[in-house]
Amino acid sequence: MKQNAYIAGVGMTTFGKHADRGMKSLAGEAIEAALQDAGIDRTGLEAAYMGNAAAGVITGQVCVPGQMVLRELGIGRIPVVNVENACASAATAFDLACTMITCGLYDVVLATGMEKLYHEDKLKTFSVFTGALDLENASGVMRDVRNAMREVGTELPEGGGRNRSIFMDIYALIALRHMQQYGTTREQLAMVSAKNSFHGSLNPRAQYQEVVSVQEVLAAREVSYPLTLPMCSPIGDGAAAVVLVSERKARELGLRNPVRVESTVLISGWDYAPDEEITVAEAAARQAYEDAGLGPDDLDCVELHDASAPSELVYYEYLGLCGKGEGGRLIEEGHTRLGGRIPVNTSGGLLRKGHPIGATGIAQIVELTDQLLGRAGKRQVEGARVALAENGGGYIGSDAAALAVSILSRGKS
Amino acid sequence: MKQNAYIAGVGMTTFGKHADRGMKSLAGEAIEAALQDAGIDRTGLEAAYMGNAAAGVITGQVCVPGQMVLRELGIGRIPVVNVENACASAATAFDLACTMITCGLYDVVLATGMEKLYHEDKLKTFSVFTGALDLENASGVMRDVRNAMREVGTELPEGGGRNRSIFMDIYALIALRHMQQYGTTREQLAMVSAKNSFHGSLNPRAQYQEVVSVQEVLAAREVSYPLTLPMCSPIGDGAAAVVLVSERKARELGLRNPVRVESTVLISGWDYAPDEEITVAEAAARQAYEDAGLGPDDLDCVELHDASAPSELVYYEYLGLCGKGEGGRLIEEGHTRLGGRIPVNTSGGLLRKGHPIGATGIAQIVELTDQLLGRAGKRQVEGARVALAENGGGYIGSDAAALAVSILSRGKS
Repeated sequence: MKQNAYIAGVGMTTFGKHADRGMKSLAGEAIEAALQDAGIDRTGLEAAYMGNAAAGVITGQVCVPGQMVLRELGIGRIPVVNVENACASAATAFDLACTMITCGLYDVVLATGMEKLYHEDKLKTFSVFTGALDLENASGVMRDVRNAMREVGTELPEGGGRNRSIFMDIYALIALRHMQQYGTTREQLAMVSAKNSFHGSLNPRAQYQEVVSVQEVLAAREVSYPLTLPMCSPIGDGAAAVVLVSERKARELGLRNPVRVESTVLISGWDYAPDEEITVAEAAARQAYEDAGLGPDDLDCVELHDASAPSELVYYEYLGLCGKGEGGRLIEEGHTRLGGRIPVNTSGGLLRKGHPIGATGIAQIVELTDQLLGRAGKRQVEGARVALAENGGGYIGSDAAALAVSILSRGKS
Repeated sequence: MKQNAYIAGVGMTTFGKHADRGMKSLAGEAIEAALQDAGIDRTGLEAAYMGNAAAGVITGQVCVPGQMVLRELGIGRIPVVNVENACASAATAFDLACTMITCGLYDVVLATGMEKLYHEDKLKTFSVFTGALDLENASGVMRDVRNAMREVGTELPEGGGRNRSIFMDIYALIALRHMQQYGTTREQLAMVSAKNSFHGSLNPRAQYQEVVSVQEVLAAREVSYPLTLPMCSPIGDGAAAVVLVSERKARELGLRNPVRVESTVLISGWDYAPDEEITVAEAAARQAYEDAGLGPDDLDCVELHDASAPSELVYYEYLGLCGKGEGGRLIEEGHTRLGGRIPVNTSGGLLRKGHPIGATGIAQIVELTDQLLGRAGKRQVEGARVALAENGGGYIGSDAAALAVSILSRGKS
């Protein structure tokens, strides 16, 4: 009985510093573009799921940011749900929207991700990141990071205080462990940033469009050993939107061979389950593959949550693109670069396209939709038919607080 | 094909000032109570929808507050969605949870509403309320309020500045318009507060349990003419939770004659539609009645969003408990008091039970479940079989940013 959801249209802003624009303007642009792409009038929307993580602390719009955006566009009198799951807020909105279509509740649903992160008071922006951790246990996280660094003979520099990015320290810890366990090198981490900078150079909506070399990445300012600045995703503003429709509505709109959502899975992490030592990313990917009846070998391209360079390497493994510990080799052998076996983050990824946190998950959907429709321009993956998006958010215990995996496909036209 | 959701268990904290307790403690108490009431182990939950409005600005937990609460209870590895719709956040979580059951996606789902509003820096608490309005248009709202007050020959006192509650000015405006249009009196407004104080005196979980008379309400400090302090809902902390199950699971649990969710409707407001001049509350109520195949005459008790005394009067009308303009008479004739034709806010309502904003919608469900199960103690509505909850949040244009109406029922045992 379960039906699939189809993507009728997508839209997004460029990502970056939009000093003079608020969320209404950013999200409005993305939504109008998605409606236009879908050929659907704003009055045709039946429900809206609005992902945002930080409007309360950054813009002062503590509540109902989605309604504020929609009203400006003349959209009202429908169910509107504001959802938040840290950096996975947009994927959560997408997951809910897809569910409403697959359940047969609605025929036309909007999912939006939007974020305004830049603020003249940098402490405000910083508070978003500490606020995505378990604050009461943050000191425990820092202790783990310090201990792991001592094991590899380095020390977390004192100072920086409240301004220090605990998140990048967590990613540094992930990198250090991977290096120790599997012999992954700093050069391989730098290769991720270099590859994504090449991809980003082909994406006119990317926050950073210059190409950086492996040597330049390694020589850049250190953020938290072994991470340098280009190994860390930047602060950014932006929005992305997608209009989802039922099969019936897709036919009514005369959509020819639209992108289909094969599966979408959202799971909250916690500590790894004692009986099955897998991460929440592995659990979500397994479920998404099973629901879609597809596997890693079927994928033509992937957008994954490279909040840091080591994140990309470990997600290669969690998503089954390579075996455990083989992430370093996968990047080094060029398989995940445009033209390779399985191009990853053709958009430039979070590292180069940018990471306005509540917008990221749907920006991934925008990129994959463009790839599957064959309209990705210079970064087109030839003949892309099946694609996967992975978006993670927050940090609790030893895992992501929320993680979503979606698989999209498009038949031969 | 659509199945109903059933309420397996409910739980809530007392509402009030919990100076020494955080959200983990408050929500944890409510969730554990709901699980115990349902006789379901925490590992049996398949998904969780967590309503909260203000943790980001009040507690610094900007993101994933739901996961932080659930982890503390040993609940993880399930989909967790944090939802926000201002004062209707909890009803939104309830609506989503019901939808997941009615769609057949899950058999056991948790919906929680939680809020920590007290903060030593009162400006923080205040920012939650301004942050539920359209900030860019807040001056327009204030202009409307000033104009309406001038029309009845009074003036908004200058000063108070940022500390002034724009929301209570909006409610004052609603009261003034009702008084002008229908001859509603200040005494009738005071009767709402007096009635709800009587109901609250019978509710051990209410924030205020003393009875106040109509004369005492009228003589109290003025907040915004014609509203005095007891006509305005207070700041409070608290949490409420409900475990929803499918019919199959209800049978498996051996639940005898459980409370059934007949319908639940969530709509965002905006300006009134030009062709049909009804409020979003009227639209939501009509839809909820239609979906349930029931009408106002079928109701035995109601919990509605009395954020202020005039709110209760206008919702009487929007929900069809009386005709347009007859709200004042309905309260004056005692029909909505315990023992009356249609008791409203037997819990004490937002005015007396309290209004920790993100918790309110599910606290209403807790009260109505207790009423339908015949376990409401001294405030029991004899033979209650059908009940309605109405929860509204935020303010855009000329209406609520989000409004939810749910109808519950229980057959003869």
